[in-house]
Amino acid sequence: MGESQQTVLGIDVGGTKILIGRITRDGLSSECKRYPMDRSTQDSALKSIWQAVDSYIADTQHLPQPVMAGLGLVGKVDSERGVWVSAVNIPIRHSVEIAKEFQERYDLNAALANDVHAATIAEMRLGAGQQWSNFVYINVGTGIAAGIVNNRQLLLGSNFSAGEIGHMIVGSEEVRCKCGQTGCLEMLASGGDMIAHVKKIAPDYPSSTLQPYIQSGVLSVKHIFQAAQSGDALSEDMTKQAVKSLGQAIINISVMLDTEGIILGGGLFQNEWFYEQLLKYVQDHSGLFAKSAKNLQLSTLDPKNVGLLGAGCVAWRKHEQQLKVRSLNL
Amino acid sequence: MGESQQTVLGIDVGGTKILIGRITRDGLSSECKRYPMDRSTQDSALKSIWQAVDSYIADTQHLPQPVMAGLGLVGKVDSERGVWVSAVNIPIRHSVEIAKEFQERYDLNAALANDVHAATIAEMRLGAGQQWSNFVYINVGTGIAAGIVNNRQLLLGSNFSAGEIGHMIVGSEEVRCKCGQTGCLEMLASGGDMIAHVKKIAPDYPSSTLQPYIQSGVLSVKHIFQAAQSGDALSEDMTKQAVKSLGQAIINISVMLDTEGIILGGGLFQNEWFYEQLLKYVQDHSGLFAKSAKNLQLSTLDPKNVGLLGAGCVAWRKHEQQLKVRSLNL
Repeated sequence: MGESQQTVLGIDVGGTKILIGRITRDGLSSECKRYPMDRSTQDSALKSIWQAVDSYIADTQHLPQPVMAGLGLVGKVDSERGVWVSAVNIPIRHSVEIAKEFQERYDLNAALANDVHAATIAEMRLGAGQQWSNFVYINVGTGIAAGIVNNRQLLLGSNFSAGEIGHMIVGSEEVRCKCGQTGCLEMLASGGDMIAHVKKIAPDYPSSTLQPYIQSGVLSVKHIFQAAQSGDALSEDMTKQAVKSLGQAIINISVMLDTEGIILGGGLFQNEWFYEQLLKYVQDHSGLFAKSAKNLQLSTLDPKNVGLLGAGCVAWRKHEQQLKVRSLNL
Repeated sequence: MGESQQTVLGIDVGGTKILIGRITRDGLSSECKRYPMDRSTQDSALKSIWQAVDSYIADTQHLPQPVMAGLGLVGKVDSERGVWVSAVNIPIRHSVEIAKEFQERYDLNAALANDVHAATIAEMRLGAGQQWSNFVYINVGTGIAAGIVNNRQLLLGSNFSAGEIGHMIVGSEEVRCKCGQTGCLEMLASGGDMIAHVKKIAPDYPSSTLQPYIQSGVLSVKHIFQAAQSGDALSEDMTKQAVKSLGQAIINISVMLDTEGIILGGGLFQNEWFYEQLLKYVQDHSGLFAKSAKNLQLSTLDPKNVGLLGAGCVAWRKHEQQLKVRSLNL
């Protein structure tokens, strides 16, 4: 088989579904399939993963063997030892040797990474990060997290938690976060917390155009941004707060790391108007040492596919590292 | 000559003086001499440096030749190409090829680094940073800056400005910084700006115990901390603001980089009481993702000598890199 036809197995493990597909080195995905995730317990979640991979492998036996598997996982991942250390969104309380078990089950090497770290590697190999040696990828969806790339290397930190920028303090002491701090970025600008906060203070805004969405239980960030654009006071307040706190975090990241640029991805940036508000805030508030903060770009990767691409890129990266080690040992 | 007797030339170029000495690989300094710095213009500053090195070399001809020279310089330093790019405190407006000129003048290789980056390398090789792979060294003196170490590598950033944390935004929009931003850390917690701010608002505090120091023109941060401990309202306000803004920056750095620990150095930490206030603030305000923020240690290196040690360590690091490249090429 020619190298250009080689593929890896990408496995994107989310809180509600598992996506599996074949990914070429150039980031083309094919044979993508979706499987259910039962995250009631650690056991049920792991069972969901193994059942999904079993099914996928059975269904794609006609294809050439992949050269490696890559898994994108929520929570804390020891990508060096191939261990899923812990997670909250999927209840992983005891660490799991995923890579070892994968090898035993399927006779295939597996590489692991945290989901936002995996998306960062996808940005570096296939997205806006191709142009830069030093950048940060920021994902703003239900939660907020980032991946930091320096000299084209992803920083892991001392405990695989580098980039947990959702817990940077940017707000006032009135807002208490479940991490124990006050004023965390995630409380002020994540989709999950914005929706929760709107619901909580909505009784004070009886004429807000968000009320029907709240009462019918379908409120999403999209509604908040739309209402803000139409002058709804509650929505404007929430959006301004999110823009200010994200903007401040971006300036601080830029100043601290002297990046070349910052890439934005995740659900909230499906809304281009929100991105424009943020860009304007950063341009108006960043100074001499935050030049790169103005180099704020939207991810160009398909948001529906970036988790799978990320998992595939994690596998390709590990495969290339192994080839390099082998060639050095020859 | 045995390797243990080898030395490098350390050259610590400051705004008011130039220190030059011999430094062993273990960080022992000897033959240290002090020379004047005339920073009226770029030319006078460069002339001061060359005259200092000329004198030092003439005065130490009886010693064995150093294996390398290292220079610690304020401002922006391209340590890869050996170029002093720019500085404000010493007026370097046009970039200078210091390493090349040093080689031509003295037939000796020279390595360059920004002064805080050099101190960070000293912490990594000789100080509290020996125990950690991932840490940040924060220097709080007249200004505020840091060095970031990941996997025992100093991060330079895309433009040699990584660690310029003095321009992280931690305060309100009322405080305008010369960088163009509002609320910069340096405006709230650096020695230089604290003193300037006390002088500015002192007329509103006629009974402040700082008044005699202000009027006689000798006010220092030491006086502010002493007065704060005795209950002087003006001094208490200033100190609380410095502790809060530094504490918040430290938590944000810890969360973002997932460091193992943070080392504090510079003039303000000569005062242990101030360090204790800061440690308490961080312990009270940091949560789950800022564990390393609590691992806040004072530098154990002699503050009077750390610039020279840093310059020496920059030379030793470059020397070792060259030996490694040579052995790989054999």
